[in-house]
Amino acid sequence: MQEVRVFAPATVANVAVGFDILGFAINRPGDEIVARFNPDHPGLVITAITGTGDKVLPYAVEENTAGVAAQRLLEHLGQTELGIDLEIHKRMPFGSGLGSSAASAAGAVVAVNELLGAPLSRESLLYFAVLGEEVADGSFHADNVAPCLVGGITLIRSNDSLDIHHLPVPGNLQVAVVHPDIEILTRDARAVLSDQVSLKTAILQMGSLASFITALYTNDLPLLGRSLHDYIVEPQRKQLIKGFDEVKQVALQRGALGCSISGAGPSVFALCDSGYLAQAAGQAMQEAFARHGVSSQLYVSPINQEGVVIL
Amino acid sequence: MQEVRVFAPATVANVAVGFDILGFAINRPGDEIVARFNPDHPGLVITAITGTGDKVLPYAVEENTAGVAAQRLLEHLGQTELGIDLEIHKRMPFGSGLGSSAASAAGAVVAVNELLGAPLSRESLLYFAVLGEEVADGSFHADNVAPCLVGGITLIRSNDSLDIHHLPVPGNLQVAVVHPDIEILTRDARAVLSDQVSLKTAILQMGSLASFITALYTNDLPLLGRSLHDYIVEPQRKQLIKGFDEVKQVALQRGALGCSISGAGPSVFALCDSGYLAQAAGQAMQEAFARHGVSSQLYVSPINQEGVVIL
Repeated sequence: MQEVRVFAPATVANVAVGFDILGFAINRPGDEIVARFNPDHPGLVITAITGTGDKVLPYAVEENTAGVAAQRLLEHLGQTELGIDLEIHKRMPFGSGLGSSAASAAGAVVAVNELLGAPLSRESLLYFAVLGEEVADGSFHADNVAPCLVGGITLIRSNDSLDIHHLPVPGNLQVAVVHPDIEILTRDARAVLSDQVSLKTAILQMGSLASFITALYTNDLPLLGRSLHDYIVEPQRKQLIKGFDEVKQVALQRGALGCSISGAGPSVFALCDSGYLAQAAGQAMQEAFARHGVSSQLYVSPINQEGVVIL
Repeated sequence: MQEVRVFAPATVANVAVGFDILGFAINRPGDEIVARFNPDHPGLVITAITGTGDKVLPYAVEENTAGVAAQRLLEHLGQTELGIDLEIHKRMPFGSGLGSSAASAAGAVVAVNELLGAPLSRESLLYFAVLGEEVADGSFHADNVAPCLVGGITLIRSNDSLDIHHLPVPGNLQVAVVHPDIEILTRDARAVLSDQVSLKTAILQMGSLASFITALYTNDLPLLGRSLHDYIVEPQRKQLIKGFDEVKQVALQRGALGCSISGAGPSVFALCDSGYLAQAAGQAMQEAFARHGVSSQLYVSPINQEGVVIL
């Protein structure tokens, strides 16, 4: 094979109850990554970056999430002398809270691995993708990369040891994700967080988290709804998202099981038990943002079960 | 029926990963509670309290956990004029971290309910038993009362709303509980806890909790072992338990999946994947306490699936 093209989906991390340890993939938006053999030069070269609008992403391999992820993989495989061109086609905004950098990193390792005849399993690729994402995010964590790479709802027991588990997805679960045209950098979103939590709040959050996991295993959507509360992060971060309280309120009024911030924001997700409800909730959320003068994009999707796909 | 005698089992709350939200029942020790019609007086009277050693438990109904639990139930049923004698036979020490007061409260409501022809379901009795336990403990929480009443491993999403869930029990799971002859009052055990947790610690704890729940649903005992870590409470409370570090170390050396403090302590539990291992781990834990000059009692049991039983 001379060229591999992949699609790497957007992801919703944190999922209200699992800060830094839960994430799921959605069907759209996502990035396209192309890896191609090029005998004219040795080593990995980023030859194209498109879809970045007025933003600039670095072409230097060691400064680019996709570049770093692919390069660490090539080092592991002892293939750094191979001439490989990498193209990054961004199909989603940066700083959206939808795992943009994770998608590029996960897409790059799958594309390069496939180009080399797939020497590593999907699971084995995770480590290199997380190293790539670390360049953008400044911390080693897999809550976007893992669901992007393998799909589904993923739980991370420990980011240090990448102890990842696939959680079951209730049949009708659908997501409305609304991305308002507000930019929040992950680093900034982390800066607003207190480094302390009250024990009382931690207990509330743990009860909700444990019940959310239980709800997934027992297909108990009412329990899932009662569990989807973020007591720790949302109260601190929502100030960064104009109109958030009203957006959440209309989502719940339209019957969403729960609604919270996607990753570091500003995107807001609502989990619903049908596609009809997700569409209706999503449109109401867009209208609420519009009342605050904020334009937005809506994505309605089931939980994506495939992760990165080869096109 | 003129008399009902019940057995109410000891319970292990917190279970390392779920402070205030998880608990399970064991087969022994436990309390025996007797409820008996007495036409010679109206109202509820505590007529016997045995097994308290050199401690004294109040006979006044409104000061006694079993008395309050039974009285609240009788008020709910409009039966406060019925003459009922209540006997409380303690078969486990107070302040052991094994849910002694919860057992008396849960036993009392089951005994009185049964005496009256079982007008309420087991689930409906929980609220009254928690009100009883509140007398001893000073807070409204069900992490001992719920597993004592209904058995198994129980999760409490919210203590305020008593949103209780039964978690699956992996087939071979066995518990060694060692009760050292040290007394810790629940109120004192709470006093040593900081009211703040670092966000980083909370994330570690949440990853462990979510993985523990996942391990129960997937029958994944290695994951259960990797998950059984208490990052929040054990580091603060273990100072109250002489020899704790060594006791835990020998339990893990003997192959226990995990080991931590039962409830508010001083009892220490170890979860194991066979009765042989639990017995061996428990004896090693007793020997470790003995090396610190602390005598102890050992209880080895599967997870009790029945809760309070009518004798």
